[in-house]
Amino acid sequence: MYARIKDVLSGRFADGEEVEVGGWVVKNRSSGKIVFTLIRDATGEMQVTARKGNVCDEALKVADALSLECSIIVKGKVRSDPRAPGGKELSATDLKLIGASRDYPIFGEEEHNPEVLLDLRHLDVRSKQLVAIMKVKDSVLSAAREWFRNHEFFEVTPPIIISSACEGGSTLFELKYFEDKAYLSQSAQLYLESLIFGLEKVYSITPSFRAEKSRTTRHLAEYWHIEGEMAWMGLYEMIDMLEQLVCYVCNRVGEERAEEIRLVGGDPEYFKGLKAPFPRITYDEAVKVLQADGFEFKPGEDFGTHEERQLSTHYDKPLFITEYPAEVKAFYMKDAGNGKVLNVDMIAPKGFGEIIGASERETDLAILEERIRKQGEDPAKYAWYLDLRRYGSVPHSGFGMGTERLVRWICGLEHIRDTIPYPRTISRSYP
Amino acid sequence: MYARIKDVLSGRFADGEEVEVGGWVVKNRSSGKIVFTLIRDATGEMQVTARKGNVCDEALKVADALSLECSIIVKGKVRSDPRAPGGKELSATDLKLIGASRDYPIFGEEEHNPEVLLDLRHLDVRSKQLVAIMKVKDSVLSAAREWFRNHEFFEVTPPIIISSACEGGSTLFELKYFEDKAYLSQSAQLYLESLIFGLEKVYSITPSFRAEKSRTTRHLAEYWHIEGEMAWMGLYEMIDMLEQLVCYVCNRVGEERAEEIRLVGGDPEYFKGLKAPFPRITYDEAVKVLQADGFEFKPGEDFGTHEERQLSTHYDKPLFITEYPAEVKAFYMKDAGNGKVLNVDMIAPKGFGEIIGASERETDLAILEERIRKQGEDPAKYAWYLDLRRYGSVPHSGFGMGTERLVRWICGLEHIRDTIPYPRTISRSYP
Ligand SMILES: [Mg+2]
Ligand SMILES: [Mg+2]
Repeated sequence: MYARIKDVLSGRFADGEEVEVGGWVVKNRSSGKIVFTLIRDATGEMQVTARKGNVCDEALKVADALSLECSIIVKGKVRSDPRAPGGKELSATDLKLIGASRDYPIFGEEEHNPEVLLDLRHLDVRSKQLVAIMKVKDSVLSAAREWFRNHEFFEVTPPIIISSACEGGSTLFELKYFEDKAYLSQSAQLYLESLIFGLEKVYSITPSFRAEKSRTTRHLAEYWHIEGEMAWMGLYEMIDMLEQLVCYVCNRVGEERAEEIRLVGGDPEYFKGLKAPFPRITYDEAVKVLQADGFEFKPGEDFGTHEERQLSTHYDKPLFITEYPAEVKAFYMKDAGNGKVLNVDMIAPKGFGEIIGASERETDLAILEERIRKQGEDPAKYAWYLDLRRYGSVPHSGFGMGTERLVRWICGLEHIRDTIPYPRTISRSYP
Repeated sequence: MYARIKDVLSGRFADGEEVEVGGWVVKNRSSGKIVFTLIRDATGEMQVTARKGNVCDEALKVADALSLECSIIVKGKVRSDPRAPGGKELSATDLKLIGASRDYPIFGEEEHNPEVLLDLRHLDVRSKQLVAIMKVKDSVLSAAREWFRNHEFFEVTPPIIISSACEGGSTLFELKYFEDKAYLSQSAQLYLESLIFGLEKVYSITPSFRAEKSRTTRHLAEYWHIEGEMAWMGLYEMIDMLEQLVCYVCNRVGEERAEEIRLVGGDPEYFKGLKAPFPRITYDEAVKVLQADGFEFKPGEDFGTHEERQLSTHYDKPLFITEYPAEVKAFYMKDAGNGKVLNVDMIAPKGFGEIIGASERETDLAILEERIRKQGEDPAKYAWYLDLRRYGSVPHSGFGMGTERLVRWICGLEHIRDTIPYPRTISRSYP
């Protein structure tokens, strides 16, 4: 294994110590007798200096000819130099070209057309920006899983291919499954509900699929869905729990990935310092706020991007909005008895929109069947799911959180597509 | 939150202390004046005793009428009793039925037809057997991720929907993707290879899909694939690494889930004690072993289930077999120069078969194009992938491990279908 650039820069090696580093060329300039090469590895960037006399002529020639994204292995002596980026450089004693790179199609300085960059995504994933976002995402996933594990959750693997189409048939991807038709899952929820009877608290992080026909900055056709389901838990206990989960993830990621968040334009200090409680209002209260703000909003409808953005301007923290009208929400959300359901949406501040949707689940078989009929479907289609209410049903709640939406918020990104290495949208499934 | 059964059994509460427990009925017998109810939660099983006089008559009536899989909440006093399973029982002071359960269709004592049980999978997932296996799987995933994180790997989220069909077109699931055709990914490998240029070591745990037309005990149409890709790493260094990874996961899961492994018929001690190094033989040596064992095997072909089983009988540990003939292996495996490739398969002992497939990757553009042509395909189809060799290519290796195969081996299961809550096979995508 080669020495890591961050270890060189952090002073792990003494001045004069010889190390070997592998990396890719970020910049190269030469004066004939001395070549300055900025290289990167997964941990950072560092200057390599090849001087005539310190390296053999052949190596100097190699250094002189380096171009963007060449891969090289350098042997050299660590040298403190205040002029070098990071305060250290590697004074090369030997230098080998490993992989050439002629006419690398993405130049750091140019502004590229986003579609061109998406066509070159297999190369653009090595850009500083995308690498930083991927590191943030890695931390988000790791922090979430750690939180779940510390709170008696079991990770489970619900199915992706499903045979019956629940919730929103129009945005389902259809599949030829041997001789049958099947669909790609939009949510693991119904399956997770079945698993609480043995494990009580379960979570899954799976790809979810929505054939979204609209082009927006916050939808992907394929995204990673963090979902949890908890036996013996009501709505308000779940909200307390979600607050803890979100704070834990944000605090840890803000701490662990401060540099990367800053690099992509986000504010790590905000996330490091995020604390419970978050503001909570009901749907009815939210409607009043919108009306006071001069919005023409018809009570009874769901909030869209505009309403969520407006509501979030009143708060510096994520906002929980509870108890929406039953008609605009899914059949499985528990009836609150007043035309509302026991649900909650968590809206991120500054217009980043909905990040979590959650609810206590209806356990009453008759109400469930009625709600399924009301949305124009046949309860028989949900036969196995309804069985869960026939045999030892318990109060329970669950949630779904969009990993990419969370990463977008933490990184402060305009567009969600950069939160996933290979975004899938209506116009793109390549590369 | 209710008290956990394992905490009651482990003596966390003093005799006489009153606790409240929520759970499901496993068994119930009554003598009119006293009712013994075995209940379970996610942590264990415990006896509840409802005695006339200790509970009100109404609660006694409820207890008397309990049936399999009813959910209840019991208040009661902890009582040590050597006759009770686990040495403790809960002497009820109050007992409430939460969810009734009439004629639960799965009886513990009966032997059910496997297809019937699979139709009832949404209920069977609460069985002791499947719950134990899910706990083992949770530990396997968690241990693997911990190992990766401790070894500078980043978790990434490669795409599931892909537009070009790599490796084995005949077993691809086809999808209608808006106005286009697309496929479900069989492996994240090619995408992971693109991500090492920024992150060096990456892994993903994603669903992978194979339209397997054969019915076997070790294939699923949908399974969870643990894949890793490492820059600057050759085949033999990777084998050392895989040994460490497998030992870490097996040791930790054997320790953490000993009880569950034993319950399903496995041997936790073996996994706790598994140690590197594992035996390593080349394909050519393996052929000689088979021939000495009296197998009629034509050198040059790939090993199948029978050969792998036979080879594994010679060892008590997983077996690494390296350097297979190029013709039987995928185009991206590095040419060893002697008609072989720099690949390795890890075969579990006792006939559990292949668990890991891995290789160093070919970096030479001309060889890659030639190998693609040889397998009857057009290199143009792999344009983006071949770009990775054009711009700063580095030596690298990667592997794929079947999560369910690993769980099957650790649990000692006959059939792979019980390693996933909702198995997908040629005849089944329901429930
Ligand atoms: Mg909403
Ligand atoms: Mg094989």
